[in-house]
Amino acid sequence: MSVSLTLDELDTPSLLIDKAKLFENIDFCQRRAHALGVKWRPHVKTHKCAPIAAMQVQGMFGGITVSTVKEAEYMFDEEGITDIIYAVGIAPKKLARIALLNNRGADVKVLLDNTASAMAVSEFCRTQNVKIGVLLEVDCDGHRSGLKPDDPELVTVARALTDGAVFKGVLTHAGESYQAKTLEAREACAKNEVKGVCRAAKMLSDAGFPCEIISAGSTPTYTCVQDAGGVTEYRSGVGVFYDLVMAGIGVCRIEDIALSVLVTVIGHQPEKGWILTDGGWMAMSRDRGTATQDVDWGYGAVCNEKGELIEGLYMASASQEHGIIYAREGVKLNLADYPVGARLRILPNHACPTAAAFDKYFLIDEHNCVQTIWPRINNW
Amino acid sequence: MSVSLTLDELDTPSLLIDKAKLFENIDFCQRRAHALGVKWRPHVKTHKCAPIAAMQVQGMFGGITVSTVKEAEYMFDEEGITDIIYAVGIAPKKLARIALLNNRGADVKVLLDNTASAMAVSEFCRTQNVKIGVLLEVDCDGHRSGLKPDDPELVTVARALTDGAVFKGVLTHAGESYQAKTLEAREACAKNEVKGVCRAAKMLSDAGFPCEIISAGSTPTYTCVQDAGGVTEYRSGVGVFYDLVMAGIGVCRIEDIALSVLVTVIGHQPEKGWILTDGGWMAMSRDRGTATQDVDWGYGAVCNEKGELIEGLYMASASQEHGIIYAREGVKLNLADYPVGARLRILPNHACPTAAAFDKYFLIDEHNCVQTIWPRINNW
Repeated sequence: MSVSLTLDELDTPSLLIDKAKLFENIDFCQRRAHALGVKWRPHVKTHKCAPIAAMQVQGMFGGITVSTVKEAEYMFDEEGITDIIYAVGIAPKKLARIALLNNRGADVKVLLDNTASAMAVSEFCRTQNVKIGVLLEVDCDGHRSGLKPDDPELVTVARALTDGAVFKGVLTHAGESYQAKTLEAREACAKNEVKGVCRAAKMLSDAGFPCEIISAGSTPTYTCVQDAGGVTEYRSGVGVFYDLVMAGIGVCRIEDIALSVLVTVIGHQPEKGWILTDGGWMAMSRDRGTATQDVDWGYGAVCNEKGELIEGLYMASASQEHGIIYAREGVKLNLADYPVGARLRILPNHACPTAAAFDKYFLIDEHNCVQTIWPRINNW
Repeated sequence: MSVSLTLDELDTPSLLIDKAKLFENIDFCQRRAHALGVKWRPHVKTHKCAPIAAMQVQGMFGGITVSTVKEAEYMFDEEGITDIIYAVGIAPKKLARIALLNNRGADVKVLLDNTASAMAVSEFCRTQNVKIGVLLEVDCDGHRSGLKPDDPELVTVARALTDGAVFKGVLTHAGESYQAKTLEAREACAKNEVKGVCRAAKMLSDAGFPCEIISAGSTPTYTCVQDAGGVTEYRSGVGVFYDLVMAGIGVCRIEDIALSVLVTVIGHQPEKGWILTDGGWMAMSRDRGTATQDVDWGYGAVCNEKGELIEGLYMASASQEHGIIYAREGVKLNLADYPVGARLRILPNHACPTAAAFDKYFLIDEHNCVQTIWPRINNW
């Protein structure tokens, strides 16, 4: 029996994945790992979808990165993935959930950048008689948390790890790379990321703390880095789908974006040239990441139902459940081409928050039919 | 048996409701309905929580407003609420779900602003042999969908309603009021809203389409309108919780905000005076609604665990699961007051998208204990 579900039958807004693009994006990341001679540890924070994680780790070393404890629990339960880095500085209260998971066979490693946290993890491991792997966070470009690559505090924090708190290595994230507008600028970020995390690793190694894991990564740097130096692992998240922000800094082409939101035309404002849809910011998210880029896509780029970009249109404005699409200045728009009931696909500025508005994905094949429905988790 | 769950025991990020403030905010809206002599039809799009909707309609006429069909299904199933306006222009494909609900005893009314939609609803009602109430959307201030109050097209659209598509009245929304920075400006928006929707109602009535429902509303206008004129119903949504955007235009005080996100300190950047937390934009949403107001709160205002505002601090920046808090210029911050593991509450810019990041609320009583856990729905 062959079941066929077409786009036309889906309610809107719905979250679509273009299957061919998803596969190509994952394949690209896997090939890069081989080319660079590093492990690729996909960050599942973007998709939060077990079947996608399973595809990402297939044929690779099997490890993933998570942004919440819930992602770790879900990926362990659904796919039996054990080698997990929880890449947000640990809040001590979360250790109990992590220890529960590790007692069931997972190996969730935590991240920290200060002595207080190191002591809290050590104390937890001592009193609970458990082992938890620990990575030290390195701040390679001043964007978030972490210790500077040459900060001797790194060694102090490593020394504060006692009992079952097992030092595993270092991790950094090139936050700066999301603002890099040229390939040269991204390559510079990638070099700086490698240099920073390796420098920290050397300092720790020299002090008697050899790093089993030296982890770097962001989609902009992983996709362009030429020499991974001593980095053992790369993380990348949004590259599984890509989005307009990534296209805006040249990391991908707009046609590589695998994620879109299917919406329906619900009306028009003819005097203003507006097309109203039932996909607002609740579906697209409030992310306006392209607002500071050369091309501002408003709340998203507009494609036809087949996913082909409609040049000159964009989702200029939004309220909670209304999208407003109109033409860029100088572009002619014939509203009659978009009657009430017509379907459009909107490409997101930022795949992570857009996907988070939904609890499932529709995987779309080359005939624009739904091949399968995949779940995703949200919350914490 | 008395069960006590303190804030200290909650995982972070968690979504909290201050019970006393919630009750006061609901009571205020109910009292206004009596004072104005109108029906209050709360918009559940902000909370999407059945127990809160039940409180809102108690002692009132029983009707609600929804922004998605799923909200209608949920509120009917959970609370038996039948009188529902789905206040987003109808996409014809959604009529089947609405008819299913109405066949079970609900009375979901739909909204539209064009002849094509009116014909689609009429055709659906004819072929399915069902009745669906229809409101015409009036655009009182140019912000979204709807026909202008004096547009004769209103009558044309009303005439296009046939068979089971039953004309019920008109509905408008003062989108402009969210930008009104003074009480006078808000009152002007409220007057304009009343005037616009009543003008449209009169035109329709004169043409033989008397309006059983004349619906206006937004939180900024409902809270200040002095004369409801011929308006029969007011809708308001975000006023159930309030938020920093509402405080920024003077609709509420910051201390009236009932919603907050509990976060944990995970580290610091001492040189920069940063406090890092485990609540990033995934928890707060990407909404930067205060960015264009007199006071920009970044991603949120910072309170202590008891919910008391900490003057001079704000959540200046965020990544997916990291919040960055620091002091405003000229304000001294002692990082030692916020050690790793400390809890803070962040007040949101915009309650609707912040709440949408979570699947439950913790209702907090006057002793800062959890009184109950309430569910909320998301998606479509």
